[in-house]
Amino acid sequence: MTSAYQALIGILQKSLVELNEDLNKKPAELYEPQQYILALGGKRIRPLLTLIGCDLFNGDIHEAIHAANTVELFHNFSLIHDDIMDNAPLRRGKATVHEKWNHNIGILSGDAMLVMAYKELAKCKPEHLPQLLALFNQTAIEVCEGQQLDMNFETMNEVSIDSYVNMITLKTAVLLGCSLQMGAIIAGADLETQEHIYNFGKEIGIAFQLKDDILDVYGNTDKVGKQSGGDIISNKKTFLLLKSLELANTSQRMELDNWISKTDFDKNEKVSAVKSIYNQLGIFELSEAEVNRHYESALKNLEWISCDSDKKANLLHFAEALMGREH
Amino acid sequence: MTSAYQALIGILQKSLVELNEDLNKKPAELYEPQQYILALGGKRIRPLLTLIGCDLFNGDIHEAIHAANTVELFHNFSLIHDDIMDNAPLRRGKATVHEKWNHNIGILSGDAMLVMAYKELAKCKPEHLPQLLALFNQTAIEVCEGQQLDMNFETMNEVSIDSYVNMITLKTAVLLGCSLQMGAIIAGADLETQEHIYNFGKEIGIAFQLKDDILDVYGNTDKVGKQSGGDIISNKKTFLLLKSLELANTSQRMELDNWISKTDFDKNEKVSAVKSIYNQLGIFELSEAEVNRHYESALKNLEWISCDSDKKANLLHFAEALMGREH
Repeated sequence: MTSAYQALIGILQKSLVELNEDLNKKPAELYEPQQYILALGGKRIRPLLTLIGCDLFNGDIHEAIHAANTVELFHNFSLIHDDIMDNAPLRRGKATVHEKWNHNIGILSGDAMLVMAYKELAKCKPEHLPQLLALFNQTAIEVCEGQQLDMNFETMNEVSIDSYVNMITLKTAVLLGCSLQMGAIIAGADLETQEHIYNFGKEIGIAFQLKDDILDVYGNTDKVGKQSGGDIISNKKTFLLLKSLELANTSQRMELDNWISKTDFDKNEKVSAVKSIYNQLGIFELSEAEVNRHYESALKNLEWISCDSDKKANLLHFAEALMGREH
Repeated sequence: MTSAYQALIGILQKSLVELNEDLNKKPAELYEPQQYILALGGKRIRPLLTLIGCDLFNGDIHEAIHAANTVELFHNFSLIHDDIMDNAPLRRGKATVHEKWNHNIGILSGDAMLVMAYKELAKCKPEHLPQLLALFNQTAIEVCEGQQLDMNFETMNEVSIDSYVNMITLKTAVLLGCSLQMGAIIAGADLETQEHIYNFGKEIGIAFQLKDDILDVYGNTDKVGKQSGGDIISNKKTFLLLKSLELANTSQRMELDNWISKTDFDKNEKVSAVKSIYNQLGIFELSEAEVNRHYESALKNLEWISCDSDKKANLLHFAEALMGREH
């Protein structure tokens, strides 16, 4: 899906190797967790978007590499701290930082990684620094707000669809917009163009997160044979559950509430029962429609932008691939 | 002790009120803890140093106020996270953030407060931003390193005096140097002057921390009647303990090791016994000499600096007051 971006990915990989060497410092307890989580891999979508955002407007990629490192370091900082807050034992199949070391090391190495993100940002050209810093600060605070809202939702009885979409926008989507816009800033794109590339990234991010909710229920069972419906089992307030709570009639609502409050149940039975209500309410189609709404909005933002048509086509294909629309 | 700085303190207080209003945002769980810890008070030494550093070189105080807010927000972020890591129930006589709310809110509101520090920094003039950001980043990472070293020392058998002084330098002293230098940067002081005002702050910070170690053992018992020797009771690796471990003969070393390893003991008896060894080894005098060495180094840095002599005298008096050398 990224064949058009092989050159950018190569530059990114080289830069991540250098970043890793930069983290070869003492005290080891502060820096090794940062190297560890970076080495767990991941798709590097955010730093790639920064390079893409720069390349789209014919900027100098090598100038954008520090901003790319910034978003990757920030993303990994948020993973370390989120894993502590979610009490998660595993990340990409390996022990999370607080499990491998301990809670205190998780907190502090995360803090240091957030500062390292700003250290990379400080390497950008001075003329871009005020705007990059303002955008990155705003995004970072929004990601914190999104994480707090996500935690709040866990103990709330009623969460509106709007609140949910606002939460995933803050927690996940704004960083994708920010990643692209940082590249566009470095390439010297005008403010209106910056806004459109930001919104493109943000809308793709929302669509991607909603798609993730759908896939958990309607996704990969046939393909990979793994248990689907993890979100249903854990009562996660996804778009699908919230929409069905909104649309359910009295008896459907009672059945949903019953499954949500049960502590002792057969997992497959719960998944089947809840999925059956989703099907009665047409939740799959409604969710797909919401994905499409955000995807179309992303495309409109991209259409608006003036840039090399091949580069625009590459970004479109990349977005399609992210959304599983590859042909 | 701060009579010469009444005008600066007034500006600072007004700015902190505005900062508090800025933090009146949603979600409340993210912002209220920040308002709470700021409202616990404290001497506001760091932001005052930033204004002093600016005023010393005839800079515009109102321009330095955002940098002053930056160091105060950063300091309070570090308190929230340190209190989690130290499992501290109280801060200035009130519940710590993680006690009043919970651990997750402590982690996340601390993260947000660190970002808020950078948001304040971003309000400084663009021409100062690259240097301010580089200095603040370097300082922030050093403070994290200092906290990690402090945690490491708790479980280490041998800690050298040099390692200890390096730890307190990173954990406490560099932020005082940074606070002053940020003011000097905004006032347009030259690099060599900046370096001297930074070192003045750093050396005062080291001296102040060592003084704190001394006061815990030789300090306020007579004055306030409270239990002194808290560091002795908890086996805290202070300059005094490390120096006595370095100088102790075989029998003194055995007695110290014995008290350190005891889990069941009379607190007053332990304090008396360890203090008696300190007295035999002349630890009070050696510690005071180390304080003086750093204090003198601070003064040499201040002497080097060219500025209004009244302003220099005010800063000298402020440093004397901090060190309890007031007449």
